[in-house]
Amino acid sequence: MNIGLLGLGRMGTGIARSLLRAGHRVTVYNRTRERAYALQPEGAIVAKSIADACKAEVVLTMLADDAALEAVVFAEEGLLASLPRGVPHISVSTISVALSEKLAAAHATAQQEYVAAPVFGRPEAAEAGRLAVVIAGLSDVVERCQPLFQALGPKQWIVGEVPALANVVKLSGNFLLASVIESLAEAMALIRKSEVDPAAYLEFLTSTLFPAPVYKNYGELILRDKYEPAGFAAPLGLKDMRFVMAAAEAQTVPMPFASVLRDRFLAAIARGNEASDWAVLGRLAAEDAGLATRAPAAARRTAGGQHG
Amino acid sequence: MNIGLLGLGRMGTGIARSLLRAGHRVTVYNRTRERAYALQPEGAIVAKSIADACKAEVVLTMLADDAALEAVVFAEEGLLASLPRGVPHISVSTISVALSEKLAAAHATAQQEYVAAPVFGRPEAAEAGRLAVVIAGLSDVVERCQPLFQALGPKQWIVGEVPALANVVKLSGNFLLASVIESLAEAMALIRKSEVDPAAYLEFLTSTLFPAPVYKNYGELILRDKYEPAGFAAPLGLKDMRFVMAAAEAQTVPMPFASVLRDRFLAAIARGNEASDWAVLGRLAAEDAGLATRAPAAARRTAGGQHG
Amino acid sequence: MNIGLLGLGRMGTGIARSLLRAGHRVTVYNRTRERAYALQPEGAIVAKSIADACKAEVVLTMLADDAALEAVVFAEEGLLASLPRGVPHISVSTISVALSEKLAAAHATAQQEYVAAPVFGRPEAAEAGRLAVVIAGLSDVVERCQPLFQALGPKQWIVGEVPALANVVKLSGNFLLASVIESLAEAMALIRKSEVDPAAYLEFLTSTLFPAPVYKNYGELILRDKYEPAGFAAPLGLKDMRFVMAAAEAQTVPMPFASVLRDRFLAAIARGNEASDWAVLGRLAAEDAGLATRAPAAARRTAGGQHG
Amino acid sequence: MNIGLLGLGRMGTGIARSLLRAGHRVTVYNRTRERAYALQPEGAIVAKSIADACKAEVVLTMLADDAALEAVVFAEEGLLASLPRGVPHISVSTISVALSEKLAAAHATAQQEYVAAPVFGRPEAAEAGRLAVVIAGLSDVVERCQPLFQALGPKQWIVGEVPALANVVKLSGNFLLASVIESLAEAMALIRKSEVDPAAYLEFLTSTLFPAPVYKNYGELILRDKYEPAGFAAPLGLKDMRFVMAAAEAQTVPMPFASVLRDRFLAAIARGNEASDWAVLGRLAAEDAGLATRAPAAARRTAGGQHG
Repeated sequence: MNIGLLGLGRMGTGIARSLLRAGHRVTVYNRTRERAYALQPEGAIVAKSIADACKAEVVLTMLADDAALEAVVFAEEGLLASLPRGVPHISVSTISVALSEKLAAAHATAQQEYVAAPVFGRPEAAEAGRLAVVIAGLSDVVERCQPLFQALGPKQWIVGEVPALANVVKLSGNFLLASVIESLAEAMALIRKSEVDPAAYLEFLTSTLFPAPVYKNYGELILRDKYEPAGFAAPLGLKDMRFVMAAAEAQTVPMPFASVLRDRFLAAIARGNEASDWAVLGRLAAEDAGLATRAPAAARRTAGGQHG
Repeated sequence: MNIGLLGLGRMGTGIARSLLRAGHRVTVYNRTRERAYALQPEGAIVAKSIADACKAEVVLTMLADDAALEAVVFAEEGLLASLPRGVPHISVSTISVALSEKLAAAHATAQQEYVAAPVFGRPEAAEAGRLAVVIAGLSDVVERCQPLFQALGPKQWIVGEVPALANVVKLSGNFLLASVIESLAEAMALIRKSEVDPAAYLEFLTSTLFPAPVYKNYGELILRDKYEPAGFAAPLGLKDMRFVMAAAEAQTVPMPFASVLRDRFLAAIARGNEASDWAVLGRLAAEDAGLATRAPAAARRTAGGQHG
Repeated sequence: MNIGLLGLGRMGTGIARSLLRAGHRVTVYNRTRERAYALQPEGAIVAKSIADACKAEVVLTMLADDAALEAVVFAEEGLLASLPRGVPHISVSTISVALSEKLAAAHATAQQEYVAAPVFGRPEAAEAGRLAVVIAGLSDVVERCQPLFQALGPKQWIVGEVPALANVVKLSGNFLLASVIESLAEAMALIRKSEVDPAAYLEFLTSTLFPAPVYKNYGELILRDKYEPAGFAAPLGLKDMRFVMAAAEAQTVPMPFASVLRDRFLAAIARGNEASDWAVLGRLAAEDAGLATRAPAAARRTAGGQHG
Repeated sequence: MNIGLLGLGRMGTGIARSLLRAGHRVTVYNRTRERAYALQPEGAIVAKSIADACKAEVVLTMLADDAALEAVVFAEEGLLASLPRGVPHISVSTISVALSEKLAAAHATAQQEYVAAPVFGRPEAAEAGRLAVVIAGLSDVVERCQPLFQALGPKQWIVGEVPALANVVKLSGNFLLASVIESLAEAMALIRKSEVDPAAYLEFLTSTLFPAPVYKNYGELILRDKYEPAGFAAPLGLKDMRFVMAAAEAQTVPMPFASVLRDRFLAAIARGNEASDWAVLGRLAAEDAGLATRAPAAARRTAGGQHG
């Protein structure tokens, strides 16, 4: 397909590569132009403007957060203004349900098509074409874009025709991941304080009850007390808990675990772990159990500071 | 009345004084004998043994915790072995519902009378005869001991005939107090970080919505970030949350606030505030909001320590 | 003073009366005109439009929530468009910190003055001129409006010059009130299940440790299991928890009690108590302890319904 | 080996079978004798007394809970009184850390050997010899019993020499499982209320992020809203949360997720789900979101009952 792609962070760059490898024609746009040029040798065409990238069969956006996507869509010469009729906007970013609904309404008003297609997977999975994709939008549009979705990864799920539902699914998935982190954090604090070998503990659990990679990977981070550099930073975890709780409040659904997670991310950030991976809940649980940790200087300063 | 009194901590000593001042004959016993002799000039008779203190119309116990009271009651020459028939045991200590039930059963088996009469109030209130007393036991025994109860304080409530019910009431009261502390702790962390004057905030609240002394007193401790020396130490708060949760579990009653409180006390203790007043939840809330505090050296070490 | 007043719900009507009684000239505006005319016999002047009500020395707004206030302020012929320079807008409503900041910015851009002055107290207190007022705004404006504030109630606190700070204070106060409700709800569920007399329990507590009226009033509602009609409805409680948590998140302050409260309000509403007083957390605690309650038909249907 | 086995519930019976199949000589004892005789055709020898079953190289106990195991061990002609020197007691039951420590002390005093070897797996896994075993005890005793452990399952982990550590591990594992249940329960309540297909949701999640059988199995129960008959009943889940929290409290480790879980199990039981599988937290989350469920009659009565 002839694909426009806006947003070349680590995820967007990975997606660009897997689309190119699958034989698609990809025109990329990024505010910081260097990232676009870096993809030229691999076959990408560099767009000079958003409008330029819209000369395509479909436009994909992969931005960091609500604000970044809103800026790209609603800017004066942004996506909404530039998208030709019949060229659907596929939003791959993890955004709030509220923004997804706002985009759906705005595109509908402009007689444009909008599909939400958030993905699960890290940048390496994006590059390898191994993302899991959650898709919601008008079925004929979704149908038409199948070649694109297949290039993203082998596992797709078409949730329905209301785009925001895909975002609910994505956010609830991140909630489940954060729950894995917090439960491991608490269990491993208990294990360490009980003087059981935490490495053997983790190895036993992940080879019996919990063979899923997420248990192994997050367990490893907690085990090694090493949360920097962040794969997915704590403030992003906080943001997703806020979004999932907002989606749940809109449906009148209490989520006690999500509430605990939100408070834990807030405490983690306030205690100096703003730049750490969201698995840093493991450090928080260790500190709250009185265990020594490799807290960063910022955290140390805060935790043991003078009276202000 | 002719009263035996076992246990001369700060509360027991205060009670002894208010009983003496009310004209009762008081025979005191304490494992560490000095505390008993200290009361001699004020008219107390010093017992050499528990059995000695049982030569009375009624025996009062005011011990620090379950273990201490169990030791006094079930020791070889302890209260259970020494109490003459017709001399009731009145337990004033804050103990678990389970121990109160065990005492009720043991005394019944020994054909002895047992009344639970836990009190609200600090040592100064005990000494001034200004405690609030929650009483449960056979009504004729309770009746007979009225002169004693009236010396403890102006406010009494006879809950019923099942002793453990008085303990449920006492523990639930301590739960309500701890809830006041945690709610103030959270509100004041928000206020401080919002750069509102916390002293003016507290003054406004306690002169409008929350005129109760508990709000003023605990608010003051949090405001001044000064939790040492402890009036009522954090580990005692933890213990009472454990007891109230055990009582609630026995009745199949979920108590989400109590659960939060238990975890907060655990974190406070693990983070080095073992010797602090239970209002130290205010320090915890401040630290978790990234505010600087006057944390004790132990807490500082733990929070910013090396990896173990 | 010559005062314009927008919004004549129960609170606004009460405020109008206490202003009139204090001798002020009050021009009232309400979307539903009947409520305005109802105040005419007491001396109020009825405005035909918002602009009409702005012919005054100061304009007061007392709307139900963020949406209602936004509608009044940002409408085509709304307050922002109508307010003459030098006539301050005093917002008495309980609104979000975010909206208060937005209003401050909008009024500043329009070279208008804005003061946040949320109040504590029920409609009866408003009418009696017995509200507690939390004030924040430029000090000369606040100074100028003193006669108005004094008519609202005897107790005022000037927090500072940043309007949103008054909203933080108001929201944190509602958080403290909700904490009282939940702690009483849990304690009284335990007391009822333990077969202690809950009326005597409440009477004892409020005459000893917790003499504040809020404990008596909310305790009474829980005791009588009577939450209808609502003084302050559960969805408003939920809204305020959302607002206080948003304010706390903006300052990176975790508030575990607020998180529990938010989930409890959500469950209360989802379980059919949407029209009940926010003290209905008492019913929720009772139901979760397996106690029988006077749940409304809606709640009964939900709790024991068919599979959907 | 020559093995005595006390306790023939579903787990004990399964273990007996896998031991027999592995060629061990197994003497079984059960209070209700029928269950022992049922195993005779498969080669088991029926003991008439605990002492009888102790004529072996090693004695295994698999009882339902702390009370049942205490009864068997500390009875007048119980295990402690009957176990010959040199015959180790291997406790396979899920018990509290406190009881495991008490057993270790009692056996040591009696110069007997004690190994804790709790297992993960359901009765079918026990029968198939596919349990995961967590072992702690003196290494030469553990060594000697290897043939027995290998018959239980392919996956063993020797934690150390202090028996209670194996119990900490087992309890923390059950905490992790309960966390999976609650996180799925909340996510699926949100999904159902958002009108996303919950079956497709579960299928997608368990084929991407969460390929572990525990997600599939508990997800299925929640999806079908079918928690009866119980594989592992809610009161057992509550018990294990109590035990893990007690173990954590002994090490001063706060566990916020465990606290939430304890309250959820309490509410589930109080609301009429005492006989349901512990995955019934899914029903609770659905009800608290206002979703209709197939609640049992008991739950329906409670939730919508008359005032008591």
